[in-house]
Amino acid sequence: MTGCCTVLGAFLFEYDTPRIVLIRSRKVGLMNRTVQLLILAYVIGWVFVWEKGYQETDSVVSSVTVKAKGVTMTNTSKLGFRIWDVADYVIPAQEENSVFIMTNMVITMNQTQGLCPEIPGKTTVCETDANCTAGSAGTHSSGVSTGRCVSFNGTLKTCEVAAWCPVEDDTEVPKPAFLKAAENFTLLVKNNIWYPKFNFSKRNILPNITTAYLKTCIYDAKTDPFCPIFRLGKIVESAGHSFQDIAIEGGIMGIQIKWNCNLDRAASFCLPRYSFRRLDTRDLAHNVSPGYNFRFAKYYRDLNGAERRTLIKAYGIRFDIIVFGKAGKFDIIPTMINIGSGLALLGVATVLCDVIVLYCMKKRYYYREKKYKYVEDYEQGLGNQMDQ
Amino acid sequence: MTGCCTVLGAFLFEYDTPRIVLIRSRKVGLMNRTVQLLILAYVIGWVFVWEKGYQETDSVVSSVTVKAKGVTMTNTSKLGFRIWDVADYVIPAQEENSVFIMTNMVITMNQTQGLCPEIPGKTTVCETDANCTAGSAGTHSSGVSTGRCVSFNGTLKTCEVAAWCPVEDDTEVPKPAFLKAAENFTLLVKNNIWYPKFNFSKRNILPNITTAYLKTCIYDAKTDPFCPIFRLGKIVESAGHSFQDIAIEGGIMGIQIKWNCNLDRAASFCLPRYSFRRLDTRDLAHNVSPGYNFRFAKYYRDLNGAERRTLIKAYGIRFDIIVFGKAGKFDIIPTMINIGSGLALLGVATVLCDVIVLYCMKKRYYYREKKYKYVEDYEQGLGNQMDQ
Amino acid sequence: MTGCCTVLGAFLFEYDTPRIVLIRSRKVGLMNRTVQLLILAYVIGWVFVWEKGYQETDSVVSSVTVKAKGVTMTNTSKLGFRIWDVADYVIPAQEENSVFIMTNMVITMNQTQGLCPEIPGKTTVCETDANCTAGSAGTHSSGVSTGRCVSFNGTLKTCEVAAWCPVEDDTEVPKPAFLKAAENFTLLVKNNIWYPKFNFSKRNILPNITTAYLKTCIYDAKTDPFCPIFRLGKIVESAGHSFQDIAIEGGIMGIQIKWNCNLDRAASFCLPRYSFRRLDTRDLAHNVSPGYNFRFAKYYRDLNGAERRTLIKAYGIRFDIIVFGKAGKFDIIPTMINIGSGLALLGVATVLCDVIVLYCMKKRYYYREKKYKYVEDYEQGLGNQMDQ
Repeated sequence: MTGCCTVLGAFLFEYDTPRIVLIRSRKVGLMNRTVQLLILAYVIGWVFVWEKGYQETDSVVSSVTVKAKGVTMTNTSKLGFRIWDVADYVIPAQEENSVFIMTNMVITMNQTQGLCPEIPGKTTVCETDANCTAGSAGTHSSGVSTGRCVSFNGTLKTCEVAAWCPVEDDTEVPKPAFLKAAENFTLLVKNNIWYPKFNFSKRNILPNITTAYLKTCIYDAKTDPFCPIFRLGKIVESAGHSFQDIAIEGGIMGIQIKWNCNLDRAASFCLPRYSFRRLDTRDLAHNVSPGYNFRFAKYYRDLNGAERRTLIKAYGIRFDIIVFGKAGKFDIIPTMINIGSGLALLGVATVLCDVIVLYCMKKRYYYREKKYKYVEDYEQGLGNQMDQ
Repeated sequence: MTGCCTVLGAFLFEYDTPRIVLIRSRKVGLMNRTVQLLILAYVIGWVFVWEKGYQETDSVVSSVTVKAKGVTMTNTSKLGFRIWDVADYVIPAQEENSVFIMTNMVITMNQTQGLCPEIPGKTTVCETDANCTAGSAGTHSSGVSTGRCVSFNGTLKTCEVAAWCPVEDDTEVPKPAFLKAAENFTLLVKNNIWYPKFNFSKRNILPNITTAYLKTCIYDAKTDPFCPIFRLGKIVESAGHSFQDIAIEGGIMGIQIKWNCNLDRAASFCLPRYSFRRLDTRDLAHNVSPGYNFRFAKYYRDLNGAERRTLIKAYGIRFDIIVFGKAGKFDIIPTMINIGSGLALLGVATVLCDVIVLYCMKKRYYYREKKYKYVEDYEQGLGNQMDQ
Repeated sequence: MTGCCTVLGAFLFEYDTPRIVLIRSRKVGLMNRTVQLLILAYVIGWVFVWEKGYQETDSVVSSVTVKAKGVTMTNTSKLGFRIWDVADYVIPAQEENSVFIMTNMVITMNQTQGLCPEIPGKTTVCETDANCTAGSAGTHSSGVSTGRCVSFNGTLKTCEVAAWCPVEDDTEVPKPAFLKAAENFTLLVKNNIWYPKFNFSKRNILPNITTAYLKTCIYDAKTDPFCPIFRLGKIVESAGHSFQDIAIEGGIMGIQIKWNCNLDRAASFCLPRYSFRRLDTRDLAHNVSPGYNFRFAKYYRDLNGAERRTLIKAYGIRFDIIVFGKAGKFDIIPTMINIGSGLALLGVATVLCDVIVLYCMKKRYYYREKKYKYVEDYEQGLGNQMDQ
């Protein structure tokens, strides 16, 4: 008991600190201080100031709504005079983080279930029924082959298919784009972000934006960097593409919103940064289904109650709103990890200088004698000690 | 060769350890131990126990399906008696991580392509044709102006537009909300999560939930925290808002599912935590398109084959299911990083105590003498050594 | 001033290095070198080579488009002969990161607003009007009860509801699946990824893929691992399920694209890896709405202008494209953190050996005497110093 207390006491009231050789030398001293300074500068300057190593970080959680505005008219022989508004060209009517604006289309009206000749192509042109396999449906077929070879027009015969008739002919995409006026449509992007770790939330309609401003502003990187209303044409141009080109075959545009926030500063410094990028890197070498398009149909009944549909192959631009960013806030854990490993790095200064002093300098034996005390093992020869 | 072996042998069979001054002093000893204890407590308590610094973490990958249930009826002069079920009020029918429930609407029936007067507004009221610019289509227009000024009703004249006629009049939103009974609709949220790094997956319908329970339960934070069926009204109330208010102009609600899992424990402790948040912070100062709404149309053909549509401006609540969370599992890398930097921090204790002992205490010269051995450079004066 | 310079000079031209006891002992030396080697091997081998601790990492930002292809026909007594193409079975027509393929359906044609008997069930079968509560609408009701008990067929009476009539009867799901031929449909997945931190982007259609190859290839893990066209049947089989089973009640399939890239190597080594997983772990114990289905309707007008609809309860497979991955690139910060903590860990070797040498070995008193210099505090007894 008493012995235990003595040991505990001895342990508690003890303080151990390494014994140090303090070498007073201009060369070595300066070298040592320089190396220490460099490491300190790195730790403080780079890790703490530049990379904010004292901060805990969190990734953004976001919600987005997009509202398109704009109306245009077209006048073609097929469709006649027609007005296109939001309900016509936004498909589907709402999505979570993106919006699709139809800019071009191949429309096939009044389709019914029936039998009709295929569109002429490599595998569909035929001369006799023997060229058509009944019941087959290839990946690119419009329907299921009946096995008959029928007249497509006066000169050409193609395999007959059971399909929605007449079959869609998408060999020619309208040029210029059917809804080329979509260039002037606008998107209002409302974005609300949240950093769960710091319970910090903010929206892209900043507090200092007035209603009057919102009614008239259009985003511009220089003059209106915080206006959340974007002209489609400007988005595409900012990404370095031509709207009229992309409008023909469609594409995917990314509206990137970057929220990099230093939450150690005031919340008002946490601002959205918009940038635009084309996401479907159009590669001229790979024109298998270039751009972006999909098919949808409007179904209705004719006077006899039979189902009919208008098939639309919609080409257009899908605008994906991509929200990303990191928020940082002072936290003791990363600070301590960085201080700890910074201190460990300071030890490198001593190791480096030791190597130079003890191995490279002329007076190395003199310094070694000062730093080391050699202790030989008993067996190898006791008493052979070179003290200091 | 032999020399090389000797050097290698000397290197292999050498062991160097710093020489230590062991000061036996109550004051200094206690101080030293206290600082060491604090650092140790921080490293173990905070880094390892609280922040689980010994764990590798991974972010969740999730898939969500949502199914709405509920039916209600309305009786208005315009639409007559009408029943609304899931296929009527969920638009679009399916989405990936969200579901939109229509709660209010401005319906414009039997629209056709044609010419009609605009809804009166600041820029649309006119007195003569001179007030209307032919061919113009503003951001907020319903159509393309023909340049004529026509009678809107007996007293008022507005510019004529080519548009889907009659033009939608959304100046008055129904109050209370048209489908106010949506408060009692329910959402069944099925969520499956996966932590790729640990190949751990789980669903929010826990193994101990019975089919009978699932048929009748409604989520409640206190009584049924793991029931995946939510009453719309309760979701909105939990977020601190009034359902009947939000139903009028729409909004975005976040259903947050948090999967924070310590995979060092049994999988059954890894449980979903639900919380609710309104994502479109309704800011009274900014009522440019407040809430959430969008337009869609149902197209059909009249007896003459002309295209007609019913335009619906749908106000409603979009429920975004936001799944987040981190799983942690023991891993040697972060453990070692934290132990390494913890050890480095322990060195701080010695540095701190050294500063006090060698610079602040009365007996500082005595201690300095014990700790340091001063070695002068030859040039500056040999033999001027103050050993210990 | 002069004093200050002297102190500064002394500080600058000083170099302190710990004094070391160098013990020449085979046992202790070997032990020490072994422990150091192990720690060094861990730091270099595990942290740097295996876990690439010298790299900064970034998470992927991705955009996805999916295009389904395929056509099939059905021949049933209810619908007659019918062709199904993309516009019929993909609902909605486009989504951001997923695509839904309808494989089965319960179709209820020609529904109108009206009064009709409920489908028989536990709560709907009645004998008198007293069994039916007027105005009630349960979670699973098709409409709002009128309070009357009417004949459902010759033998059975059920409560009457105001609803879209006739009411949908989904008690029997078609087996085998209605569109069982969907097994041969294909999906073309176009995926574009971006690592914002490194400004590195790539697409899953690799540069060496030719157009001819893209026209004919089908993904196969062994023969065509980089073909972005997937046969639905193969996807489901790769995940270990039967397509015909999943087609009946629907389900969610995950198409996972993993982009783990080491950007210190050439960009051509950064390749997508596809894998497939069923996301709705079908749990036989919980068959509350098993699989995946939703309802949608096609609206039209009959000859009298009344609204009618065809209600479709669509069962099918939702393919969620899940893109994940991390890119790593050399960065000085994590390298330094890991070196720092590796060095700190090297200190552990000395601590471990010290414990053994000073507390466990026979000659511990001899070594202790060499390592420590004991300094007693004045008060406790000056001059009681045991110097080496």
